[in-house]
Amino acid sequence: MYLRDLKGKEKDLLGKEITLHGWVKNHRPQKDFGFITFSDGTQFNSLQLVYDKENVHFKELSSLRVGSSILVSGTFQESSGAGQDYEVVIKDFTLLGDCPEDYPLQPKKHTPEFLRSIGYLRPRANLFQAVFRIRSVAAMAIHTYFQNQGYIYTHTPLITTADCEGEDQMFKVTTFDMSNVPMSEGVVDYSKDLFHKPAFITGSGQLQGEAFAMAFSRIYTFGPTFRTENSNTKTHANEFWMIEPEIAFCDLENLMNIEEEMLKFVVSYVLELASDEILFLDKFQEQGLKKKLEDLVSSQFTRVTHEEVITILKNANVEFEFTPEYGEDIAKEHERFITEYFHGPVFITDWPKDIKAWYMKVNPDGKTVAAVDLEIPGAGELMGGSQREEDYDKLIARIDEMNVDKESIDWYCNLRKFGTCVHSGFGMGFERLLIYLTGVENIRDVIPFPRTPGSCEF
Amino acid sequence: MYLRDLKGKEKDLLGKEITLHGWVKNHRPQKDFGFITFSDGTQFNSLQLVYDKENVHFKELSSLRVGSSILVSGTFQESSGAGQDYEVVIKDFTLLGDCPEDYPLQPKKHTPEFLRSIGYLRPRANLFQAVFRIRSVAAMAIHTYFQNQGYIYTHTPLITTADCEGEDQMFKVTTFDMSNVPMSEGVVDYSKDLFHKPAFITGSGQLQGEAFAMAFSRIYTFGPTFRTENSNTKTHANEFWMIEPEIAFCDLENLMNIEEEMLKFVVSYVLELASDEILFLDKFQEQGLKKKLEDLVSSQFTRVTHEEVITILKNANVEFEFTPEYGEDIAKEHERFITEYFHGPVFITDWPKDIKAWYMKVNPDGKTVAAVDLEIPGAGELMGGSQREEDYDKLIARIDEMNVDKESIDWYCNLRKFGTCVHSGFGMGFERLLIYLTGVENIRDVIPFPRTPGSCEF
Repeated sequence: MYLRDLKGKEKDLLGKEITLHGWVKNHRPQKDFGFITFSDGTQFNSLQLVYDKENVHFKELSSLRVGSSILVSGTFQESSGAGQDYEVVIKDFTLLGDCPEDYPLQPKKHTPEFLRSIGYLRPRANLFQAVFRIRSVAAMAIHTYFQNQGYIYTHTPLITTADCEGEDQMFKVTTFDMSNVPMSEGVVDYSKDLFHKPAFITGSGQLQGEAFAMAFSRIYTFGPTFRTENSNTKTHANEFWMIEPEIAFCDLENLMNIEEEMLKFVVSYVLELASDEILFLDKFQEQGLKKKLEDLVSSQFTRVTHEEVITILKNANVEFEFTPEYGEDIAKEHERFITEYFHGPVFITDWPKDIKAWYMKVNPDGKTVAAVDLEIPGAGELMGGSQREEDYDKLIARIDEMNVDKESIDWYCNLRKFGTCVHSGFGMGFERLLIYLTGVENIRDVIPFPRTPGSCEF
Repeated sequence: MYLRDLKGKEKDLLGKEITLHGWVKNHRPQKDFGFITFSDGTQFNSLQLVYDKENVHFKELSSLRVGSSILVSGTFQESSGAGQDYEVVIKDFTLLGDCPEDYPLQPKKHTPEFLRSIGYLRPRANLFQAVFRIRSVAAMAIHTYFQNQGYIYTHTPLITTADCEGEDQMFKVTTFDMSNVPMSEGVVDYSKDLFHKPAFITGSGQLQGEAFAMAFSRIYTFGPTFRTENSNTKTHANEFWMIEPEIAFCDLENLMNIEEEMLKFVVSYVLELASDEILFLDKFQEQGLKKKLEDLVSSQFTRVTHEEVITILKNANVEFEFTPEYGEDIAKEHERFITEYFHGPVFITDWPKDIKAWYMKVNPDGKTVAAVDLEIPGAGELMGGSQREEDYDKLIARIDEMNVDKESIDWYCNLRKFGTCVHSGFGMGFERLLIYLTGVENIRDVIPFPRTPGSCEF
């Protein structure tokens, strides 16, 4: 059986014999007995196995090495030792897969850099057992929230010729032999490529998501997205997962309601279904993590305009590195100040139109757009959303004003011709959420196999 | 409110005024009154709106065009007409977004080819309202099954340098200017590309999935995969979604148990949560669809070896186009015969090793591998799985025998050095499942925005 199947049945199993398969996480062999920290990875907490000299396998058990896979049968009982409630007294034992003395993942403190270098083994380490389990639970939380509300999960395409993030940030995809790209009169002859035109892997599913929102009212995407950014920071990866809901008949106020409700649901879900993992991370990764998450669930999110934020920043008795200015973007230090100022999450709305995207709805003032960023204490911007321009003529004017290539998105613009309506959507970077949920600082450590400049391992 | 919010509250709402926003799907204006088929896409069935001459908006209502978005308030009541239980008598009305007379999606029969050409509008058509809603429900069914069983949802990387399907079937990804690829001594200088080496978008997450199974015992992937196949058939697309579970301490028999249980769960879930959609498809797409699905849930899947299948085919009194032979692959006509022969789904096991992949475990006979294909009546092969070779030396020998590039997968082979164990996994093409669930014949019609050779629209 798997460890997870024990959960909740401990009392019934007392004194009974059970059979388990899994791995030796730690081993303390003594002269006359020994303790094995055992796990099969199906729950966060490990189980203690004990054996003594009377066991016919004593010699073999004593020499068991960390990392080995084993099959054991034994009696499930209450443990008299500190640190665990239950243990198994081994009766029968088989070594399934040995592990050499120089196994890289010994039970001691390793640097994150070293663990990244053995990325195919690191999910076995406690930290990553917690992180990737939370990744799975949080993903399910997101699906559960949106499905419960009747949103349609939409698989927008990865390969695309249209993208709202701009082509210069996108990877090209091709079937060409790169050493012999077919040219015709000095330009690449894309008629010979599989799609007969230049193609990319997408940075966003928003445009196609809007088409589906115009059919189902409420949809969400949840899939991988890509950016070519050549940036080696703690928060950038070239491949990451995004959630992008699009909602018809929804204005900016409603959008904020949805963002707030969704985030609180996801955090509550993780607190409930990954409680052991959160306790571990609270102890070893970010002190106060559990309280931080609980506070978020019970907090009231503030709503404030970009202009008000700048006024608050200007009036603050603080020497900022970057001077806050009306009409300009705000820096990380400003985000931090604002969430501290309001003691909680803050929706900043109505941004200067010149620093935001072409598809956002311009407000009646002609200077700002109906956009909203959600700033979270200790995490910065977690979601970015906006009301989309639903008027065909205004959208085309914006596209021309901002020199966006119209040709590949004519169908997108046409959505405004056929039963257009007020609609809004937002994007949430899944890894950014995970950094917040786990207290892990580097995006490389919340992605199973991260892809960053110069690094595409495993 | 959204239509979906009415569900189950109809009796309470009788005689009350409700406000709805959505689209005109059809309109039958008469001299003194009119009927509007209305939907916001949040449930499959539409709602009838009625109005008459007394309405102050009568003139405007009478000229409403199909495809327009509207805001209506009115009284919810039982309908005396045939075809629906309830209707709304319009009181107040606002036209939100007009729709021109030449709107391409008129309420009449369209060819699939035409609908593909307006792929950004087709989700509004009844067929695609059903299909893409089932796509969402089936995706949630898969997540629900695996999460309930404690599997860890693992986001394996899309960009990769290692792939179990072979590089010739993979798209290259690059940041290079395609008209000016940097060369050095006659070969592409990949040190100048973002990852400093050739990179691809993946055809499978299996290899990385196995690394996670060796840490969590039970994992699944669910994400997009890609093949460059230049094949224009009903069943091929260059981008599709796959589910790939990997399970440690699991042999082929157990794998079949899991496949059978999972499929029955997913089909039951869809029958329950998409009952309106299944009824529609049963009527207009595949007669007997509902019974076909119900039969699957109650059926016992047969388990038979490849050798036994060949014997059955050879003894059959049937003139096959392709002669069945021991040691060779079977054709679609054979698959069809076998599922008919056993009156239900059939697991075919123990395939000739020469026609299967390098990572599959070779059976003691030295001639076959512990692989299994699941054949479904009317759908052909739905899942393909195998026990993976868990012995390091045997795996390396197979890799050498089959001329697989060892260098990029050394880490994968190393998994066998550090606590190896019997493990198995399978892959299920999500679109193949959807074709089976919906009765739709062409893969292009179960993918929101399909990518096929020469076609990368929207």
